[in-house]
Amino acid sequence: MMRIEIVCIGDELLKGRIVNTNAAFIATQLVRAGYKIAQETTLSDARDSLRRGLEEALGRADLVIATGGLGPTLDDCTREVAAALFESGFHLDAHLEAQLKKRFTESAATIRNQATVPSKATLLPNPMGSASGLFFCEEKKALILLPGVPREMELMFIQSVLPLVSARWPLAGHRHSVQLHFCLLFEGLIDPLLRELSLRHPSVEIGIYPALGTLTVVLTAPSQEELERVQEALLNQFGAYHYTAPSGKIEEALLMACVHKGCTVAFAESCSGGNMAALVTSIPGASAYFLGSLVTYSNAMKQKLLGVRSDTLERYGAVSSQTVSEMCEGLLAQSGADYAVAVSGTAGPEGGSPEKPVGTLYAAIGKRGESPSTCRLLVPGNRATMMSITSHWMLGALWRHIEKGLPPFPLIMR
Amino acid sequence: MMRIEIVCIGDELLKGRIVNTNAAFIATQLVRAGYKIAQETTLSDARDSLRRGLEEALGRADLVIATGGLGPTLDDCTREVAAALFESGFHLDAHLEAQLKKRFTESAATIRNQATVPSKATLLPNPMGSASGLFFCEEKKALILLPGVPREMELMFIQSVLPLVSARWPLAGHRHSVQLHFCLLFEGLIDPLLRELSLRHPSVEIGIYPALGTLTVVLTAPSQEELERVQEALLNQFGAYHYTAPSGKIEEALLMACVHKGCTVAFAESCSGGNMAALVTSIPGASAYFLGSLVTYSNAMKQKLLGVRSDTLERYGAVSSQTVSEMCEGLLAQSGADYAVAVSGTAGPEGGSPEKPVGTLYAAIGKRGESPSTCRLLVPGNRATMMSITSHWMLGALWRHIEKGLPPFPLIMR
Repeated sequence: MMRIEIVCIGDELLKGRIVNTNAAFIATQLVRAGYKIAQETTLSDARDSLRRGLEEALGRADLVIATGGLGPTLDDCTREVAAALFESGFHLDAHLEAQLKKRFTESAATIRNQATVPSKATLLPNPMGSASGLFFCEEKKALILLPGVPREMELMFIQSVLPLVSARWPLAGHRHSVQLHFCLLFEGLIDPLLRELSLRHPSVEIGIYPALGTLTVVLTAPSQEELERVQEALLNQFGAYHYTAPSGKIEEALLMACVHKGCTVAFAESCSGGNMAALVTSIPGASAYFLGSLVTYSNAMKQKLLGVRSDTLERYGAVSSQTVSEMCEGLLAQSGADYAVAVSGTAGPEGGSPEKPVGTLYAAIGKRGESPSTCRLLVPGNRATMMSITSHWMLGALWRHIEKGLPPFPLIMR
Repeated sequence: MMRIEIVCIGDELLKGRIVNTNAAFIATQLVRAGYKIAQETTLSDARDSLRRGLEEALGRADLVIATGGLGPTLDDCTREVAAALFESGFHLDAHLEAQLKKRFTESAATIRNQATVPSKATLLPNPMGSASGLFFCEEKKALILLPGVPREMELMFIQSVLPLVSARWPLAGHRHSVQLHFCLLFEGLIDPLLRELSLRHPSVEIGIYPALGTLTVVLTAPSQEELERVQEALLNQFGAYHYTAPSGKIEEALLMACVHKGCTVAFAESCSGGNMAALVTSIPGASAYFLGSLVTYSNAMKQKLLGVRSDTLERYGAVSSQTVSEMCEGLLAQSGADYAVAVSGTAGPEGGSPEKPVGTLYAAIGKRGESPSTCRLLVPGNRATMMSITSHWMLGALWRHIEKGLPPFPLIMR
């Protein structure tokens, strides 16, 4: 397979002032088109280091796609460095100059600068900005230069670069790929099966991408049948945790399930501190099923708003099965929701005890007219991790309950 | 100056499935400490390409800082490749094994794997996860390996890597540096003054790091006097927005102010969807002042829990000054808090109108016994950005009101 490398140019990137979204954009586009990225390098604007870095990349790769440093200012020297590497002179492109004059109000000198292009390069039009893209191609090396401004680069990539790459470097064997999302699972639970599958199906690439409380498995195979065999083995064992959502997010799967079933949902959050609400409201359209969340951080609010009895709080504590059960029942009554989730736990770093160490979580999930199921869990990680895992787990548990009709808290969670 | 390179390892980065925030984090930290990053490279998990890429980086740089591929799973081979490059064997670290067994519930085999470490490397402790960091150091080359999970990597970088780098590679000329945090300001407001100051004080480096709803200015100068002159000029104009907090976070400044003044706070959130609660509860100790948040996403909950009148909702709509004012008053009554914040807006992408386009936000801040101040704002960005900016702005406005006794909504917000 051809070797493609991405090079991103700019001191702003190396100083950490900008997060490099260009590399992720280019990679996503090429991977979806069936290509593979072998390496990405971020280089300084400084001429020497830029020249060395580009030369190294061209030495390793069949095609280098570089972004940044094409503007008219002092520190933009990508064009010159690239022209030197391909031993190209420059000429003024009168047609381009006339076009740029029509479209932009920059000074004549700036426009002349932007219209002076390497003679050995093919121009790639920039519909939004004044810096054209450039394509250098020799027998053993090829270089595409694009501007660094994401919106300009992204448009040019779609309009010019993708067609160019697929025309010049057509794909030999098509590979099939699928992403499978799982809630409630962690890496250690699924890894033994993945290892076994990867031994049995060496031609299938298996990637595992754990997130906080969910994980994604990516399968890539030379044939659809092989892909399906591995997928089937995986879903045979873990199908009860497998959800689908365009974004890959459990909060989107929950929205889809609730809209499909026509049900409403509310939360009562203590230790998760509003994170469950923040997750579900991050998806546009959440108001179709999400009524709200009572973040009752204090005991007084648990009593006043959710009707938790002071006797319960005194006898069992705020972090207890009894308390989350009453929170859940109170919430169903207060909100009128079809389903309610209540959580209370010790997020730390302070507040743990021998019986209820930091990370202890009690959760209740209830449906109107039924008594809630409760569960005690130990959530790993520090405060932030625990809050996030708790929230994703609860959305996963609720989704399973609503979408699949399964008990909300499976055995693996205990 | 020493040459530092960053290497990020992982197919998920090269496939564009993850945006590389680790590189930006490491760069920002090192640049603030006075160092410079010469290059960043993203490499595949594949053993050959990882080995070649690391070898090239070690050949160019004095120090390579690499993240990713330290986990116990199949595709994690960074440790082995690094050990081979430094000709190091492995041994089982019994002490580390015992520690990991206590902290994690993973299988014995996984823990044994994570406790088997290269003999030539120094361990860097990972307080959050099971993968230790590693530090290889020979006369001409040095390599630091960190896990790829951002929250683990970031903590280890602050706790272990920064002290290690500044001890082994001290900076030649001492420079004085200060970080100043501002709430409610955006880059365009402060940039003209910063440009002027940078012309008047060319020896002072001025960096501006805008975040969502707050921003940080970093001043670095050869002398303390020069630093203070620039700082003074900056605070003269923007002192009313300047907060201090060890983490640099406005939510921590708010906690400190409330604990200091002995007051309590509650929120009523509509469009911010629980994000305000999630921010303040992310700081340990929040229960000292934060009573809770009513995320009343539906109008029914606004009425039932906060006592917003149906007449108000009908006449003015949920996104109106009248509604947030009633939410704020209802919240003060329901929660017993000293201060209350209520927000309602259109986060989009749907739901805008000519009078109230997407991004329109109404906010109310009230103190018990006083009638609330309200404000109409236009918040920039997409749904996620708007929710985050809104939340940070509100915490900033509340902090100013409590800590400085200023009106919650300054003119610059309108």
